[in-house]
Formats: sequence, structure tokens, C-alpha cells
Amino acid sequence: MTSTMTATGIDAVVSAVVTTVVEAWNRHDMKAYSAQFTEDADFVNVIGMHFRGRPQIEAVHIDLHRTIFRNSNLRAVSSTVRSVNDQVALAHVAWEMTGAEGLPGWNAPELRKGMMSLVLARSGDRWLITAAQNTELVPLELPK
Amino acid sequence: MTSTMTATGIDAVVSAVVTTVVEAWNRHDMKAYSAQFTEDADFVNVIGMHFRGRPQIEAVHIDLHRTIFRNSNLRAVSSTVRSVNDQVALAHVAWEMTGAEGLPGWNAPELRKGMMSLVLARSGDRWLITAAQNTELVPLELPK
Repeated sequence: MTSTMTATGIDAVVSAVVTTVVEAWNRHDMKAYSAQFTEDADFVNVIGMHFRGRPQIEAVHIDLHRTIFRNSNLRAVSSTVRSVNDQVALAHVAWEMTGAEGLPGWNAPELRKGMMSLVLARSGDRWLITAAQNTELVPLELPK
Repeated sequence: MTSTMTATGIDAVVSAVVTTVVEAWNRHDMKAYSAQFTEDADFVNVIGMHFRGRPQIEAVHIDLHRTIFRNSNLRAVSSTVRSVNDQVALAHVAWEMTGAEGLPGWNAPELRKGMMSLVLARSGDRWLITAAQNTELVPLELPK
């Protein structure tokens, strides 16, 4: 592998990471899910909690997939990928989820939608997620 | 300026960008606000809308600061900064806002809180925001 990648190359590599993450989610395999993150990764979830480091990201997701996400199914509906430079890429993934359970104080709709952004960093010949943030879609119009 | 920066140096530079953005918000000066973003920046707002490019980020924020944010006041409560490499840094800013107006279907609490992540890229001797995502804090406990 050369030290630079074409836009198409980065697109393919990042898309493969997204696919791996979505498939791991749907198998509820949080070891495989977390393995796509760097050791020092940051993760902000849909309610604004900030998790720091792969071990915490894994532990939190294990708990969630034992509980409210045990029957959830995630789909990446569309995504955009952009390279910041040779070592860092951004992905924005529009997602849909069914089968998630609610929490006291959070009545999840049957079909949830959201936007997840990923910052991917090159680590040798792999690309890993070093930051992720997830925001639930709220179907509102902005004021003009 | 040398081509590498110490952790403290990146911290100071990124903190200065955050301060500039917050001060511009509170003056409702969306030209100054948007000037801290790269031309190709991505922005995901608290309701999951994905804006692409500085011109769109500026246009949307001008509309918002004519309407629901005209009397809003933003404060950065705490932040963490981490460099991905010499050219890219991440910031996570916990914020509070008062004075925001609601939308039909969105009853904003008087004190809003959230977490905004920023991806900053070095551009010559400046650092600019190339991606931002904002998530409103929902005060819930995760299930164990």
C-alpha cells in the first residue's frame, strides 16, 4: 500500500469499517464493534454522554446490548466520506433502527433515525474510528 | 511556528477557536462564527440535520440567530482537546445555553445543555473547524 490513497480508496476502506460496525451491532457482538475503535477513542451518544477510550465504549455498549438494544436492528441508509488528509477521514452515516426498547423518560419510536459522524485515523494499514458522535433525528423544520 | 506543536500548544490554539466561536455566537455575528470553519466543513445540529460547506453553515445560522437564538447566550462549561496528529485535533465542548426560544414541537428548557464535538484541521498557521456535531443532553441514566 502506498502512503497516499485515492478518494475512491478511502471511500472503500471507510465504507468497510461502517459495514463491520453495523454488522457487529446487529449480531450484538460488542467486542467486534469496539475493535473498530482506537484505544483512545471518544464517543458521544444520542443523549449527549461522552465516553472516553475503547474500554469504556465497549463496557457501555455491552450493557446496552444486554438491555434496550438486545433486539435492535441498525441499518446505514446513506453515508458520505471525505478525507481531511492522508491519515484522517470523516464519515457521516444516516441510520435507521428498529427494535430498540425505551427507557423511563425516553419513549423510543418504533423507527428511530439519526446521524452518526465518525473520525477515522489511519493506523498502519488499518483505519480505525478515533471519534464518533451520534444524534437522533428530530423531524422539525428550522425557522426562516 | 515549527511544524510540530506541543500538547499545550494545541490546547491553547483549539481553546482560542472555541472562545472565538462562543463569543461570536453571543454577539450573534454569524459571519465571525462561520469564519472559524473550513470551506468544506460538515455540521450536524442537535436535531440531526447535516449541513455541508461553510456557506450553508453560515446561512442556516444567520436564520437561526434572527429567530430562535436571537436572545440566546452560550457558555462553554468544560472541554477536552486531543490531537489526532500534527494536522488534526479533536475538541469536545460541554455547553450550556439560556435564552433560546422553542420551536413548534420542541419546547426548549430554559437551561439547555449539550455536547459539541469539533474536528479541527491545520491550515497554514491557523486551525479551523472542519467538522462539528452537536447533541443535546438528555438527563437519563443508561440501563445496566
